[in-house]
Amino acid sequence: MGAWFSYPGAMPKRLIVGLLLLAALPATAAEPSRARLRDLGVTIGTMTPGKYNAITDVPGVKVGQVTLVRGDGKMTPGKGPVRTGVTAIVPRDDVWRKKVHAASFALNGNGEVTGTHWINEAGWLETPILLTDTLSVGKVSDAVVTWMGGRFPKMGDGDDVVLPVVAECDDSFLNDQQGRHVSTADVIRAIDGATSGPVAEGAVGAGTGMVAFRFKGGIGTASRKLSKEEGGYTVGVLVNCNMGTREDLRIDGVPVGREITDLMPRYKPSDGSIIVVVGTDAPALPHQLRRIAMRAAMGLARTGTTARQSSGDFMLAFSTATVVPHGPDALTMPITALHNDAINPLFQATIEATEEAIGNALTSATTTVGRDGNTAYALPLDRLKTVMKKYGRLKEPVAR
Amino acid sequence: MGAWFSYPGAMPKRLIVGLLLLAALPATAAEPSRARLRDLGVTIGTMTPGKYNAITDVPGVKVGQVTLVRGDGKMTPGKGPVRTGVTAIVPRDDVWRKKVHAASFALNGNGEVTGTHWINEAGWLETPILLTDTLSVGKVSDAVVTWMGGRFPKMGDGDDVVLPVVAECDDSFLNDQQGRHVSTADVIRAIDGATSGPVAEGAVGAGTGMVAFRFKGGIGTASRKLSKEEGGYTVGVLVNCNMGTREDLRIDGVPVGREITDLMPRYKPSDGSIIVVVGTDAPALPHQLRRIAMRAAMGLARTGTTARQSSGDFMLAFSTATVVPHGPDALTMPITALHNDAINPLFQATIEATEEAIGNALTSATTTVGRDGNTAYALPLDRLKTVMKKYGRLKEPVAR
Amino acid sequence: MGAWFSYPGAMPKRLIVGLLLLAALPATAAEPSRARLRDLGVTIGTMTPGKYNAITDVPGVKVGQVTLVRGDGKMTPGKGPVRTGVTAIVPRDDVWRKKVHAASFALNGNGEVTGTHWINEAGWLETPILLTDTLSVGKVSDAVVTWMGGRFPKMGDGDDVVLPVVAECDDSFLNDQQGRHVSTADVIRAIDGATSGPVAEGAVGAGTGMVAFRFKGGIGTASRKLSKEEGGYTVGVLVNCNMGTREDLRIDGVPVGREITDLMPRYKPSDGSIIVVVGTDAPALPHQLRRIAMRAAMGLARTGTTARQSSGDFMLAFSTATVVPHGPDALTMPITALHNDAINPLFQATIEATEEAIGNALTSATTTVGRDGNTAYALPLDRLKTVMKKYGRLKEPVAR
Amino acid sequence: MGAWFSYPGAMPKRLIVGLLLLAALPATAAEPSRARLRDLGVTIGTMTPGKYNAITDVPGVKVGQVTLVRGDGKMTPGKGPVRTGVTAIVPRDDVWRKKVHAASFALNGNGEVTGTHWINEAGWLETPILLTDTLSVGKVSDAVVTWMGGRFPKMGDGDDVVLPVVAECDDSFLNDQQGRHVSTADVIRAIDGATSGPVAEGAVGAGTGMVAFRFKGGIGTASRKLSKEEGGYTVGVLVNCNMGTREDLRIDGVPVGREITDLMPRYKPSDGSIIVVVGTDAPALPHQLRRIAMRAAMGLARTGTTARQSSGDFMLAFSTATVVPHGPDALTMPITALHNDAINPLFQATIEATEEAIGNALTSATTTVGRDGNTAYALPLDRLKTVMKKYGRLKEPVAR
Repeated sequence: MGAWFSYPGAMPKRLIVGLLLLAALPATAAEPSRARLRDLGVTIGTMTPGKYNAITDVPGVKVGQVTLVRGDGKMTPGKGPVRTGVTAIVPRDDVWRKKVHAASFALNGNGEVTGTHWINEAGWLETPILLTDTLSVGKVSDAVVTWMGGRFPKMGDGDDVVLPVVAECDDSFLNDQQGRHVSTADVIRAIDGATSGPVAEGAVGAGTGMVAFRFKGGIGTASRKLSKEEGGYTVGVLVNCNMGTREDLRIDGVPVGREITDLMPRYKPSDGSIIVVVGTDAPALPHQLRRIAMRAAMGLARTGTTARQSSGDFMLAFSTATVVPHGPDALTMPITALHNDAINPLFQATIEATEEAIGNALTSATTTVGRDGNTAYALPLDRLKTVMKKYGRLKEPVAR
Repeated sequence: MGAWFSYPGAMPKRLIVGLLLLAALPATAAEPSRARLRDLGVTIGTMTPGKYNAITDVPGVKVGQVTLVRGDGKMTPGKGPVRTGVTAIVPRDDVWRKKVHAASFALNGNGEVTGTHWINEAGWLETPILLTDTLSVGKVSDAVVTWMGGRFPKMGDGDDVVLPVVAECDDSFLNDQQGRHVSTADVIRAIDGATSGPVAEGAVGAGTGMVAFRFKGGIGTASRKLSKEEGGYTVGVLVNCNMGTREDLRIDGVPVGREITDLMPRYKPSDGSIIVVVGTDAPALPHQLRRIAMRAAMGLARTGTTARQSSGDFMLAFSTATVVPHGPDALTMPITALHNDAINPLFQATIEATEEAIGNALTSATTTVGRDGNTAYALPLDRLKTVMKKYGRLKEPVAR
Repeated sequence: MGAWFSYPGAMPKRLIVGLLLLAALPATAAEPSRARLRDLGVTIGTMTPGKYNAITDVPGVKVGQVTLVRGDGKMTPGKGPVRTGVTAIVPRDDVWRKKVHAASFALNGNGEVTGTHWINEAGWLETPILLTDTLSVGKVSDAVVTWMGGRFPKMGDGDDVVLPVVAECDDSFLNDQQGRHVSTADVIRAIDGATSGPVAEGAVGAGTGMVAFRFKGGIGTASRKLSKEEGGYTVGVLVNCNMGTREDLRIDGVPVGREITDLMPRYKPSDGSIIVVVGTDAPALPHQLRRIAMRAAMGLARTGTTARQSSGDFMLAFSTATVVPHGPDALTMPITALHNDAINPLFQATIEATEEAIGNALTSATTTVGRDGNTAYALPLDRLKTVMKKYGRLKEPVAR
Repeated sequence: MGAWFSYPGAMPKRLIVGLLLLAALPATAAEPSRARLRDLGVTIGTMTPGKYNAITDVPGVKVGQVTLVRGDGKMTPGKGPVRTGVTAIVPRDDVWRKKVHAASFALNGNGEVTGTHWINEAGWLETPILLTDTLSVGKVSDAVVTWMGGRFPKMGDGDDVVLPVVAECDDSFLNDQQGRHVSTADVIRAIDGATSGPVAEGAVGAGTGMVAFRFKGGIGTASRKLSKEEGGYTVGVLVNCNMGTREDLRIDGVPVGREITDLMPRYKPSDGSIIVVVGTDAPALPHQLRRIAMRAAMGLARTGTTARQSSGDFMLAFSTATVVPHGPDALTMPITALHNDAINPLFQATIEATEEAIGNALTSATTTVGRDGNTAYALPLDRLKTVMKKYGRLKEPVAR
């Protein structure tokens, strides 16, 4: 128990408390010691990011997050410590009445994304997407019903009933997951508090308790803007990372996980899961969105993960280009459709943004101490830069 | 029987109360005025049913149901009236540690069956299957977590987390669905109270508030026993019926819905949904169980439904022949596998039992008055017999 | 007509020749003794057929068929007798440059429909659909390449290469299938000879050697026209029927196969297959066309078949509403999209037309004697009418 | 147009002839100037290859290839030049009577793999797998029928008909593909000549005319052997590479395609395709083989390709562990089944072997001049080593 625990030196209780306080800061608070991949001089792919390099670069898309960090010490099932949260991706305002086209893909279905039967049947998404921990899926799903009922009182009383979209990853290494600490109020706060602009990354929202590549994982995002000739569309990706063994980890093709072999959790957490949400304003039809969702899996594969048995690796893609009305006035609607021959830049954008979003999750996440003192260490940025440089990838070292 | 037949005339309060009392009887209570399809002289297909003509004819399979009937009169969202419930299908005792092979199929995905990503990825089912109303899915899912936590305290604390399997239909024509009246205790009672032997049908459990073919629908079951030469296996089906327009309805090919055009609900309920659960002790592998699940859709098609836009038509199939251990001691296990060339009798059994289970739901369900006095009328058995006779199908009239 | 009825007595050579001459008549020749289901007084469903009650009622859709009937007597593998052919469904002229939206569904994949990977990936169909016998798939596929090369000399020389769509059923009970008797010229003749208007049914084209429900099967077609309020669209279906056991057969729900138990082939042919092609001018998107294709499987299920192990039961659906250009000038295109809420009439139309097309195949097909004197008997129309009447279905007997 | 055309110096006609003669050597001839990735000091992943680092390391698996190189100069459609061939993967001797479990996955379905409907329905593979050029699929499929007919004269005459498995890539940049130059004799020679042991790679068999990452592509293979604790199983992969843009190319994560930007084809070939065949002796069930096939797509993703619109990216996986009899004596069979919890090493092995097989194709393929003098240049090995060294990956330079 000694060696690894002594990193970075026996951690004094004070420090643990400090870390907890840090984590308890508002989700959008900047953490000066962390950075995004691109700030470190690591550039994934060749395409240009959008303004915030975030899923919110897709016009109308909003993200809201509630981070729950309470208590410390030994786990008392049902009581804590709490290291979890909820992340809401709102495809657009009033998505129930103005549905977006959508599709999903399961690379490895050891997990849950509720609502995908309907997404894939209808080709549309009509609710926010909620990310949370595994055992809270039921409660979060129920909370979405409450939220919808508040906005649409006729739901289930004349109007259609809602089928919530809730995706989970297992944060039981850090979190008292049995306690199911995400409340209805938390879910409503995440949805109603969703905003455009920068997105908090790392140990925030649903990412609070996640572990990826045996480092601290969590929320990451990135985007790509197509050239005017390619249509000028934006592709944004948001991930909740909880997957991967250490030795798997590649960043921009560099075997980082073979170079940084310490800072391991005290025991092997479950193999995790990852949720990848892709938004775009390109007018991709549902069958094309499924193709795009599959490219998110290719971006994931580039990070070295192997979609292990215990990993629930899910991709959701939606397009805001078309407004599909709820309770339409007409049988048909005029829409704009992307020709398949124009889809390649969207594929590339999705792959690049997924790979970068995962990197951003790692470089943004902060060391988190959870139940029983279990610790998921942050990927150390200086060492990362050293490794990237060793492998010829840090072309322009960035002064920090 | 007169007054309330004279829709839209006023229903005397006394009668409503009487009906409610009837509905409030224990779920397993025999209702003398109702019958199963076969008792009426209508025989679906050519194969022989098992002892109870129920999914529980598959050795080890149990069913538990909790029926919730409370209040009457105008709906007060969140307060009632309550016409809902929960039905639990337990594939075998301790299915978490002794998983069954399984697969699912969505004929029309306008609905929710949680847990299917994992069922189809792993090829196994490791929990009970819960049926309930749409808006209660979250609460029931959460209740399964509670139930599992009670049995397996290490779940999410060292052991894997559970991915509940909860399937829904929309009962908002009769039930205050917004109230989400199924409690954790109800779910636990349904699972823990599951028994082998006869299964209550009609307006019970999750079927309490269902409407099928604009008649009262709900739970139905049937089974088929293969001959010794075919392997001697049993196929059992349980359905929760909530789908279909009146004119669609065919029973054994007879257009019953075109013959009985009255007894309609006062307004068109949503197009419903149906959940079909198929169990067998035949050693079908997961890919073969998917094939069997698709045959359940063919049995459904025989009843005349068209899997309409608003209908969530889902099939789940499992086989108890193989015990897949949780946390296995070895990398492999010796199993018995069905050869594809032996699968035809299982297909036929599934189709026949599905068609008959749907019929049983209709002939078993009792007239139910719900919110706002909305009434789903029972399929009148005498008239059914008359129709079947007219179309040459009542070969052996059964004395009742 | 007596002698050959007296199976297994010897069939006089004279009769065989006569039958062959009959079969060798031009495919479009009326056979006075046969009829379509509707002419017999059997009406499937409630919707109205199009002008020809054929897939060609969908504007622009054409069908071409080449029937190959040569030789008689004992089979000499590779030499004959020949009882096969090819049927071409042309979604519209120049479909390579003006692609149609499309999707496919496999109810039971024991068979081949080439080209479906691309159909489902792209969401479009860009070639004619060819139906033929199983072992001729390679030759017919190669012939489509030749046909395409003749029209598009740059194909594979600058332009894209073609991925032919060829669907098969096994006609080896009647045909020397090993001989692969469909030639490139036959295929080109079928495509180039495709016409709108009435479609020959029964033992013609790819249906020449087919057996369905142990009767003579083959080509059938039907259509439905939606009301103006439903959009006024047309749904057309064409089937090649080769599936089903006798006892399975239901026509409009009537168990015809249990009533007519003679006229059986001398030995059990393979369990067959069925190809169902659905065309429509409704602006269904690819994901909606997959839903429609699944409804064709529901229409099939109504006929009593169980999609047996040896049966390749495939559905293809296409929409002519959208023209997807080959080598587009722009990244996007304005199109009209069907709202999901308007899809139900298309579902019902597909189910009805599929059921009726299968019936038409049976009532149109003529007794065919093939290899080794193997005989597939036509469904006897008088007896069919008697059965339908017995079961209360022949409301208006039609004078013939 | 100058610089890259002059590589390796204006190519004198003599040299072209010489190259052609070289290419015309028996497929198994060693090409001294080429090497496998591992020989160059590039090691993909961490697992150990089998004896030959080839799909043939899986006991019983054989590969046969026929390389067709004829003519040079300007293309005369139908006449040549010929740069194509056929590769046969034989899962085991007499696979018709001793079927292997199997599954397929389409990452991007712009292409053809015939026979997959049946593979995925039955969960088995019962024929050799044939790889060839796109327009030859029909002829090769027909040739498989001929080959089967020679071995099983009752096929289609009492016994089942065969559904050939033929996968294609488009070699029209180098080959007169319109000529469809693969003959029945070639196919039979490839199947009957299949052997265990080393497998020829690069511009051989179906790989003769392929272009990958704008370099010369073609056939590659690799394998991994699991440790005894992991079951001791072997996973072998064979690819036919025809996909990818230059800038995509990553080898072991190193952006080789951004470093070697010359040696480009004179015009952009189509975006290609890739076929990945995975064999194993691990007792994976069909649903597990689909999971393994999906990991092949992850290995592909690691090479930087994005599965572009025009690319047909298909994965097939089979297991030789189980013998599924043709025409079984019994309804069931005792088999050994892999537990899902033991699948991770198979995932990793598949990913590693796929990535390495693609690398082997590139490092083995030789510069090929085809139609119109179109030239696909071999990836220059010295420059590759320089690049790998620059990026810190050539740990142990190998003397050559």
